[in-house]
Amino acid sequence: MTHEIKEIIKKCDLAIKNADFDLLMNYYTEDAILVVKPGMIAKGKEEIRKAFIAIANYFNNSIEPSQGDMIILEAEDTALVISQTLLDSDKKDSGYSMDRRATYVFRKNLSGEWLCAIDNSYGTDLLNK
Amino acid sequence: MTHEIKEIIKKCDLAIKNADFDLLMNYYTEDAILVVKPGMIAKGKEEIRKAFIAIANYFNNSIEPSQGDMIILEAEDTALVISQTLLDSDKKDSGYSMDRRATYVFRKNLSGEWLCAIDNSYGTDLLNK
Repeated sequence: MTHEIKEIIKKCDLAIKNADFDLLMNYYTEDAILVVKPGMIAKGKEEIRKAFIAIANYFNNSIEPSQGDMIILEAEDTALVISQTLLDSDKKDSGYSMDRRATYVFRKNLSGEWLCAIDNSYGTDLLNK
Repeated sequence: MTHEIKEIIKKCDLAIKNADFDLLMNYYTEDAILVVKPGMIAKGKEEIRKAFIAIANYFNNSIEPSQGDMIILEAEDTALVISQTLLDSDKKDSGYSMDRRATYVFRKNLSGEWLCAIDNSYGTDLLNK
């Protein structure tokens, strides 16, 4: 059976592709953080939404994320996702890494829904920067 | 100011060096998981304690972990730690990677203490295995 979180990440990737950031924000906790790029962090849904809009604009609204191999490490209401994240875009030579080994932390809320609390698509590569 | 979690990890490293696994277990949540090696996971304090004892025996009780560069990504009561983890031991050619880029997830409990919920010293290298 596919892990529920894998399905949620698929929905997030589709929402990013469709530039549907209202939908996308449903999958984040209120106080979530997003590593926009090394050294730059968006905190909370409003900042994260703005960051995604800026990223989409930067890529001429042609960005399309997808996931390759994925490992989900689950401890009760907390899960660490390690995932090969691929970014496709019409914009070439963007200066962004398009093939990443990402780390996402999800939390299960009281309704039993998994929401993203920490979105770090750079994974352990942050240590290189 | 040093982040509280950094201090806790330092205490954990010392407890491992001293083979004081009773003390070490104070820094894990009840339902924590430990990636012992790729494909092998210990669940809950009792399994984690046994895994640490087995690892210590394997290294002839000479294992000494320490941390290099560390980044702590904090979202309310959840934190993702990305850390260069170095393992030193008298045993050479152990078959274990001794220089890792680890991922740890910490949760803050109701008393305000940070506890390790997910201990994955292999970081995103799990995707290679």
